[in-house]
Amino acid sequence: MGPAQTKPLFERVALIGIGLIGSSLAHVIRRDGLARHIAVAARTQTTLDTAKRLGLGDSFTLDAAEAVKGADLVVICTPLGAYKDVIKVIAPALRPGTILSDVGSVKETMRRDVTPFVPTGVHVVPGHPVAGTEHSGPESGFAELFRGRWCILTPEPGTDKQAIERVEELWRSAGMLIEFMEISHHDQVLAITSHLPHLIAYTIVGTATDLEEHLKGEVIKFSASGFRDFTRIAASDPVMWRDIFLANREAVLEILGRFTEDLTAMQRAIRRGEGDMLQSVFTRTRAIRRSIIEAKQA
Amino acid sequence: MGPAQTKPLFERVALIGIGLIGSSLAHVIRRDGLARHIAVAARTQTTLDTAKRLGLGDSFTLDAAEAVKGADLVVICTPLGAYKDVIKVIAPALRPGTILSDVGSVKETMRRDVTPFVPTGVHVVPGHPVAGTEHSGPESGFAELFRGRWCILTPEPGTDKQAIERVEELWRSAGMLIEFMEISHHDQVLAITSHLPHLIAYTIVGTATDLEEHLKGEVIKFSASGFRDFTRIAASDPVMWRDIFLANREAVLEILGRFTEDLTAMQRAIRRGEGDMLQSVFTRTRAIRRSIIEAKQA
Repeated sequence: MGPAQTKPLFERVALIGIGLIGSSLAHVIRRDGLARHIAVAARTQTTLDTAKRLGLGDSFTLDAAEAVKGADLVVICTPLGAYKDVIKVIAPALRPGTILSDVGSVKETMRRDVTPFVPTGVHVVPGHPVAGTEHSGPESGFAELFRGRWCILTPEPGTDKQAIERVEELWRSAGMLIEFMEISHHDQVLAITSHLPHLIAYTIVGTATDLEEHLKGEVIKFSASGFRDFTRIAASDPVMWRDIFLANREAVLEILGRFTEDLTAMQRAIRRGEGDMLQSVFTRTRAIRRSIIEAKQA
Repeated sequence: MGPAQTKPLFERVALIGIGLIGSSLAHVIRRDGLARHIAVAARTQTTLDTAKRLGLGDSFTLDAAEAVKGADLVVICTPLGAYKDVIKVIAPALRPGTILSDVGSVKETMRRDVTPFVPTGVHVVPGHPVAGTEHSGPESGFAELFRGRWCILTPEPGTDKQAIERVEELWRSAGMLIEFMEISHHDQVLAITSHLPHLIAYTIVGTATDLEEHLKGEVIKFSASGFRDFTRIAASDPVMWRDIFLANREAVLEILGRFTEDLTAMQRAIRRGEGDMLQSVFTRTRAIRRSIIEAKQA
């Protein structure tokens, strides 16, 4: 952090989409004086009005091309399914030298839906701040969301070094640790650490939702015994998560296959009363928890 | 709570087993002056020494029968798999009028392994304080563990009313809300709210444990994106959980069957790119989170 800089990192930052991540980033940029102007674009007037009321930007528009005009940094903060439309609209307004970044959870989407349509001279530096809460929308953002978490950058080889460094500086200012990754590796790692856990949490909460009415009430009452932990992540934004699963299909199906094999083995052990097998799995899983605590990510 | 009573609720309480729940209960009994004497029995000398060092009781023994002698309340606080051995050892030492309770997560175990061997005149009041942490052993106990959570009692019809009331008073003093349930209903509800979530958490953490070494490091690094929430409950006591799954096999397999059906439907929707189906499930699951927050169990 430190004191506000006299020459800000960016002249004009355009945030395309102003949900949990976009608004949190706006708070960081404001707090640290990282841009002279924040241009906010949203898809609906309601979201735009909320962003305006919260003072998340200096200009507000439903037209992403207008927001992008004259920006030296553009950050796509929409669900992944909107990327194709966004680039179609903003591409003509992007000037050479502009940095184009995003905050999406699947980096293949940038490579496939965005990069091919970017004008020459625009620097593509895709990013993924690995942080979030179960809340969504512009009201839920806060600058501290990113502190101590990892931001993964996935620029293609040959990307302008200075452009990468400026994006790094932005996220460092937000308190994040920076990691570089190859796109498909990122998508595989996140399928395991984030996408599969969300899928499973959504599914078990869905299973409970379909229970007979009298059971459902008791599930809520006694949720502190384990179930509750799943409901938090199963309350995350539905559209964002729909898009993640569609975009990262292969990696998610691969790790899901491993998981269901393991679950079937557990089911079999329970049915046959094989206590030793259960105890051995339950003992091994304790080690990962210790590692996470040691890595200060608990 | 309130001031220490002049006539305590019990003369002598025997705690058979002094892990997370047993030691937390000991802290409550001490704090509120609920017994004149706490007799602690453990299976190993190490545990007993720790319990002694922490001042969790007034007498300490490896012989459960000795602990039980003269007790007006006996609480079995061991894993479910030890119940058969415990009742064999303590039955001859139980005097008429004694209350026999437990804290186990599957109530069928009391009905099947304990109640048939209890001498006439002993009041069986099985209990399940629905509270816990991922830590285990006598060092991890604390009096506040139970505050605001539910304690489920499952006495058979015809059980002495006064005996039930005294067990109720014990858990109320711990800050718990009391609920009565029929045994098989309890086991079904807990299979959903607690046993299935733990099984799934253990499984996904097990899947991650089996990953190639370079991936495993990254899973730990980026665990904050969802995975982390599962590792906490997958760090719970292995023997206790082995016994729960073996004891509640039918109910666990039943709800696990529903879950795997639902998971297969999700898998199919992802493979076929059926975004509407995913979004619809992800939207419905938000409601349960809201209900849990409203029920003050979040």
